[in-house]
Amino acid sequence: MSQPQTAITPRRDEDFPEWYQQVVRAADLADNSDVRGCMVIKPWGYGMWESMQRVLDRMFKETGHRNAYFPLFIPLSYLAKEAEHVEGFAKECAVVTHHRLESDGQGGLRPAPAAELTEPLVVRPTSETIIGASYAKWVQSYRDLPILINQWANVVRWEMRPRVFLRTAEFLWQEGHTAHETKDEAIAETEQMLRVYETFARDWLALPVYAGEKSESERFPGAVQTLCIEAMVQDRKAIQAGTSHFLGQNFARASGIEFLSRENKKELAWTTSWGVSTRLIGTVIMAHADDDGLVLPPRIAPAHIVLIPVTPKPEMREAVWAAVDQLAATLRTQSFAGEPIRVEVDKRDLGGGTKSWEWIKKGVPLRVEIGPRDLEKGTIAVARRDRGHKEKEFPTVADFVASVAGTLQSMQDGLLQRATALRDAHTVPIDSKDEFYAFFTPQNAAKPEIHGGFVSAHWDGSRAVEEQIKTDLKVTIRCIPQHLAAEPGTCPFSGNPSARRVLWAKSY
Amino acid sequence: MSQPQTAITPRRDEDFPEWYQQVVRAADLADNSDVRGCMVIKPWGYGMWESMQRVLDRMFKETGHRNAYFPLFIPLSYLAKEAEHVEGFAKECAVVTHHRLESDGQGGLRPAPAAELTEPLVVRPTSETIIGASYAKWVQSYRDLPILINQWANVVRWEMRPRVFLRTAEFLWQEGHTAHETKDEAIAETEQMLRVYETFARDWLALPVYAGEKSESERFPGAVQTLCIEAMVQDRKAIQAGTSHFLGQNFARASGIEFLSRENKKELAWTTSWGVSTRLIGTVIMAHADDDGLVLPPRIAPAHIVLIPVTPKPEMREAVWAAVDQLAATLRTQSFAGEPIRVEVDKRDLGGGTKSWEWIKKGVPLRVEIGPRDLEKGTIAVARRDRGHKEKEFPTVADFVASVAGTLQSMQDGLLQRATALRDAHTVPIDSKDEFYAFFTPQNAAKPEIHGGFVSAHWDGSRAVEEQIKTDLKVTIRCIPQHLAAEPGTCPFSGNPSARRVLWAKSY
Repeated sequence: MSQPQTAITPRRDEDFPEWYQQVVRAADLADNSDVRGCMVIKPWGYGMWESMQRVLDRMFKETGHRNAYFPLFIPLSYLAKEAEHVEGFAKECAVVTHHRLESDGQGGLRPAPAAELTEPLVVRPTSETIIGASYAKWVQSYRDLPILINQWANVVRWEMRPRVFLRTAEFLWQEGHTAHETKDEAIAETEQMLRVYETFARDWLALPVYAGEKSESERFPGAVQTLCIEAMVQDRKAIQAGTSHFLGQNFARASGIEFLSRENKKELAWTTSWGVSTRLIGTVIMAHADDDGLVLPPRIAPAHIVLIPVTPKPEMREAVWAAVDQLAATLRTQSFAGEPIRVEVDKRDLGGGTKSWEWIKKGVPLRVEIGPRDLEKGTIAVARRDRGHKEKEFPTVADFVASVAGTLQSMQDGLLQRATALRDAHTVPIDSKDEFYAFFTPQNAAKPEIHGGFVSAHWDGSRAVEEQIKTDLKVTIRCIPQHLAAEPGTCPFSGNPSARRVLWAKSY
Repeated sequence: MSQPQTAITPRRDEDFPEWYQQVVRAADLADNSDVRGCMVIKPWGYGMWESMQRVLDRMFKETGHRNAYFPLFIPLSYLAKEAEHVEGFAKECAVVTHHRLESDGQGGLRPAPAAELTEPLVVRPTSETIIGASYAKWVQSYRDLPILINQWANVVRWEMRPRVFLRTAEFLWQEGHTAHETKDEAIAETEQMLRVYETFARDWLALPVYAGEKSESERFPGAVQTLCIEAMVQDRKAIQAGTSHFLGQNFARASGIEFLSRENKKELAWTTSWGVSTRLIGTVIMAHADDDGLVLPPRIAPAHIVLIPVTPKPEMREAVWAAVDQLAATLRTQSFAGEPIRVEVDKRDLGGGTKSWEWIKKGVPLRVEIGPRDLEKGTIAVARRDRGHKEKEFPTVADFVASVAGTLQSMQDGLLQRATALRDAHTVPIDSKDEFYAFFTPQNAAKPEIHGGFVSAHWDGSRAVEEQIKTDLKVTIRCIPQHLAAEPGTCPFSGNPSARRVLWAKSY
């Protein structure tokens, strides 16, 4: 059976992981570097991150947080302070042992033996311990609380099987770290930031995530409670897209964050931490891209619109370029989602088809072509990335300008609807073990990525069941979802009683 | 002779370096961390950096640059590629040698011997080599040029004598890296970015810098030409506040950035790099702060205005708070220097005097107090940070709102004028060696920081003279300034002919 040709080879239904790599390449989002597991984020990919940063940063500030910056390096002894944390995190870290290089006598360099550090330093995999050391100094009395701080930073976790954006040795993220007077306040903060992430994912990334709590085995090392948002991408796997941790007094105890209470007693603070990372870029790609490349949610697109002058005859070039520049200027005075409309003008000396396909693969929401005939008629040719690439509309310039913000929002809404439909179609309640196993068994052994999706099933709360299913199917509990009310039942795996359904899936 | 008491002890004229540390502490800008030479940038200090980033990022984008992100780690072999570069930079680096930790059997951790890296990685001290490796892949033909990319990142240079903001092991910066088809284009880029820095320093930081070229001995390792801006701070020392390097084809050769030219020949690209860092925060402090603490140029102040409700009687609290909130909301709809006015409202349960002094030390441009009597009269009490702390004005709310942007700009202008007057008063031409040596010899041995300032003197162009003066006086050539035309003369140190005057100073 012949298929229409697509810009990306292979197609999603042929080889999803390879399709993903090819979309990243075709959209010019990132490169692998020569440093194992470390990526280069190219301008178009970084532009997506900048859009995300801008919005999240505003949301964090609106909820009372301020940014700060803490050291990249963590003394080895800090990591060892929180017992569970060290178990979970200390394994795969980049370790700095020397502070000077010297000639190796063969034209190369080596770490200078005389410059070995007394205490090795770890490149932060996350900053609870180093930030905790500062908070311990800053907090004396209840008057110094809450501390509501966020940090935009790079972190390093040595990954054995890297995948660009989704799992890289170095990645960019934000990490919020807060300290509170009471347990309730800290829990409220943890919940609040989960809501911020859920709202951001839905309204900006067009990702209809499930929000919930991790089971104990999937919790952040050292946390009392880990909340998360889980997205379904197009191969029906889950991606953990953001986490918010209630840390109880564990890290306050480890770091010595003590304060004099209103009752004049020494007490330990209650802390939280929460983060999202450049992994969100990978999630957006896997959720929305198609067989012609990236499809960008308009609200986070580095450019909303690309204007492509079409000038077959050199003598018309000046007039067409002038019209394009004027339209760009007009569009930039318009706003969409509270920001000025972002316009690219592509005047490169390349064929119109080549240029169009580049922008299709890059996922720009609207492509506008203007040629000499358009000038005569006073119209332009507009193509939407969420429709077939041959499908065009020919509005007047004035009509286009007047409707552009509405069009972008309707595209944004369309992406969310499509993603929600996918998620809902492939999230099913299952009550028998056989059905559960069948659901997660690929129909076609050559395409292991095509399986059922998400299951809501009862669970007896035991680690034994989680381990068994992980071993058998590579399926884990993604979260105990907040949208499902408690509902007594029977665990289909153990036959034991269950308090509620939880969400199971394969994941990245 | 008794002196009026000041918020900062010691005063500037008593002990400038210690005064600086105390201003940083009093303004709550940064902490030293337990990691040698690494600072914690606290929210108020980070807020200054965010203001700078916002403006610079806009200026970079307006000049055609886009942001990207490259790996933190550089393979040792990359650093060795450019011979001068490795000489200048390889010395004091953080070196990663292991990628895993393991238990040391005594409750602690150690780098796992089995996880030693085959090739050690260096934490980037600057990114020419790692970015060059990417550009070599990206550039095939002249059509791929220019590449105009900037990166916001952290870098590490192991510093033996750290000083917060001015010289720290880890610091934050931006580094622009561009590649061009022709030498002229690359030189024009180098010049353009120097102009961007000069304009930014003058118009946003109120720093009247000298722009010029470094002598060969002060050049960036591997550069053909290093341009810089040099600021004078209040102890009359110089701070190099930004650099822009023309790298010729040196790094292109080392990294293999080759392209097929318009004539279909293999050619090496011409590259540049340019950067400013969190050092600018230290420069602003040393340039503008006074004996009561920080004085912020309004355009980069994290808050332009603080509103302090004064509520001696609890029954008036609600009315006063409502008035304060309303004024804050009104002010936030106003703009200054193209951005919404930034307002802090300080409702903390502390005495008005305590609060006022905190904000004085933090350098907020305008402090506004509102109490019950002000409500009656419809006025407010406004204090400007650039005037004495007892000096207040009592405008009506409407008058204040209408004039606030103008007031802030006049404060900004005033800081620039004051800094310019200081610079001009202490930049002198000198033509004799004795006079030069006297100028740089402290009048009072107990206060080595008080000396003459900047000197424009002839120089024969030899390294020998530079070395001698550095050894004798710790004075270096800050730049061959662009504002001084060439003017033949005689080098006062060697008696040899000189083509022009250059700028000499002590520096941080």
